Amino acid sequence: MIKTIFYNYELDTIHFVDQTLLPAKKEVVSTMDIEVIADAIRKLRVRGAPAIGIAASFGLFAAIRNYRGDEISFPKFLDEKCSFLSATRPTAVNLFWAINRSKKAISSAFSNAEAGKKVFSAKKTALEEAQKILDEDIEMCRKIGDYGAQFLSDGQSWLTHCNAGALATGGFGTALGLFRSAFESGKKFHVYIDETRPLLQGSRLTAWELLEEGIPSTLICDNMAAGLMAAGKIHGVVVGADRITNLGFVANKIGTYGVAVMAQYHKIPFYVAAPISTFDLKLTHGSEIQIEERNREEVAMIGPTMIAPKEAKVYNPAFDVTPPELVTAIITNFGVITPPYSENIKKIIGSKV
Amino acid sequence: MIKTIFYNYELDTIHFVDQTLLPAKKEVVSTMDIEVIADAIRKLRVRGAPAIGIAASFGLFAAIRNYRGDEISFPKFLDEKCSFLSATRPTAVNLFWAINRSKKAISSAFSNAEAGKKVFSAKKTALEEAQKILDEDIEMCRKIGDYGAQFLSDGQSWLTHCNAGALATGGFGTALGLFRSAFESGKKFHVYIDETRPLLQGSRLTAWELLEEGIPSTLICDNMAAGLMAAGKIHGVVVGADRITNLGFVANKIGTYGVAVMAQYHKIPFYVAAPISTFDLKLTHGSEIQIEERNREEVAMIGPTMIAPKEAKVYNPAFDVTPPELVTAIITNFGVITPPYSENIKKIIGSKV
Repeated sequence: MIKTIFYNYELDTIHFVDQTLLPAKKEVVSTMDIEVIADAIRKLRVRGAPAIGIAASFGLFAAIRNYRGDEISFPKFLDEKCSFLSATRPTAVNLFWAINRSKKAISSAFSNAEAGKKVFSAKKTALEEAQKILDEDIEMCRKIGDYGAQFLSDGQSWLTHCNAGALATGGFGTALGLFRSAFESGKKFHVYIDETRPLLQGSRLTAWELLEEGIPSTLICDNMAAGLMAAGKIHGVVVGADRITNLGFVANKIGTYGVAVMAQYHKIPFYVAAPISTFDLKLTHGSEIQIEERNREEVAMIGPTMIAPKEAKVYNPAFDVTPPELVTAIITNFGVITPPYSENIKKIIGSKV
Repeated sequence: MIKTIFYNYELDTIHFVDQTLLPAKKEVVSTMDIEVIADAIRKLRVRGAPAIGIAASFGLFAAIRNYRGDEISFPKFLDEKCSFLSATRPTAVNLFWAINRSKKAISSAFSNAEAGKKVFSAKKTALEEAQKILDEDIEMCRKIGDYGAQFLSDGQSWLTHCNAGALATGGFGTALGLFRSAFESGKKFHVYIDETRPLLQGSRLTAWELLEEGIPSTLICDNMAAGLMAAGKIHGVVVGADRITNLGFVANKIGTYGVAVMAQYHKIPFYVAAPISTFDLKLTHGSEIQIEERNREEVAMIGPTMIAPKEAKVYNPAFDVTPPELVTAIITNFGVITPPYSENIKKIIGSKV
């Protein structure tokens, strides 16, 4: 298993994979410095909503572990460090969720401990909570993987888009969790990976992850998937999700919608794998999801190479929305949701989010 | 007008735009070496079915112009050079068509000339024939553009894939010829350009061409087209073709088929613009078209940047095949062919190729 971020109990250090260096090299950073962790979140060395939440919790632990002040100053110190971590990626919901969860547990342990043992207790709890957030994330992904793996049969080839993998989570992945579960249970299959322009999460991250796991895979450009489908070489598609509405509209990495259209045309099942925290039940139609537009350089440059004229106008949406009629099933940590989504999403997770 | 490839009569040299250097710089290569031209075709310095046919004809002339052997050895020499040029790109029917046309004219001139003047006559004919193929190509593209422009209305946005432009032809383009004709006649419209991975002919070449012409355009990644279609922002699609069978199966740049599937799903007309030399009436079904597979580095590297792990397996087909049921019409230099293609292709061009 790929360990995206973890704490080594013998060495007393936090370790994370620097994803900006992939796929050229795998470098595991070792640190007990909150500044290093905050910077890693800021610079996308650690990326993916669940992964940055986990990183922040461990970052908070590192700060407390290094605390040399007295008990009276501690609550202010804790506040400051939480604010500092929250400012790294101001729009990431998982980040605030994880920091608040850790902070609450730490504050409570600190208050309940007897004088002289308060900081020690806070430190112990900070580690326990970070470890719990990590373990729960992996457990959640394992459930998604196990629920999803039933759809994958021996001898099949599946397609995935972007990276809904270990690197985006605590270490097992959502869409890639399905492949991990199937692989662990001994199934033989092949994965085609969409490179996923413009940021190439498929070629840089998913291809690397599947090589690390030994799961047979082949990288393709996004526009090659249709031909493979026509040739009968794709038996299923699985992708992650950034947000799902109460009717089952799925916002995910740009290109997902096109894959879903092509899958339906070729009568190939199209699955979405996501934890229930991905559902935003306040939203109904896809048009309510705001689509972030990113800068032209992501499309016009790769590394130092200019691939389009300087004057060329570029359109660069980060996500698209797949309507429910193209989604065969949504695989969650609470089970598989099938159409009609207008009823079944509320039935299965309505009371839980 | 952009001059893709031409012969300069004063300098006695063949010139071509090295398209692998666009859009960073426009470099015109001067040569009289068949090896340089064959290599340019192989390495896609010259690309696009009509353009490589023209290049091959000029390449054949260059070889003959440099011939120092006797008359007896000439026919074998001609055979060898034709085979050599034919081996550069396996899928492009225009290449074989142009080589055969030149060869026939050259052989005939050689046979009919009196002893002692045979090689001279062959050389003269080789140049005349190459120039004729080039001139006819430009004339042909103008006709395609004029026939096609009727489908484009004021205020529309169209999508194109790859580069079926001036750079792919003698200088006017097939798919882009449609835009040029419409633009010349004063129509106002917008072009979305698929970047066209892996070799980025859309971002490197089409974006450059349309900027040169002043035709308003926006560059997108291939996987963004579906979302634009769903948003009602695409009113028509036009692409070129590398080979068309007698039933109307269209081989074109990888990704074309996916665009055609998405166009049909969104009820958007999908046009193929191609000269009649693109038709290969010996072929019936799409499966009879040989699809060239190219090397992994085209997908795994961009400039000096490694975008996939070294060990990642890559599938890199250069073309895909779009079936006739997805094609609204084929716009040729002999007029517009509509379904049923099984009848109408033979009716319009059957006797002419």
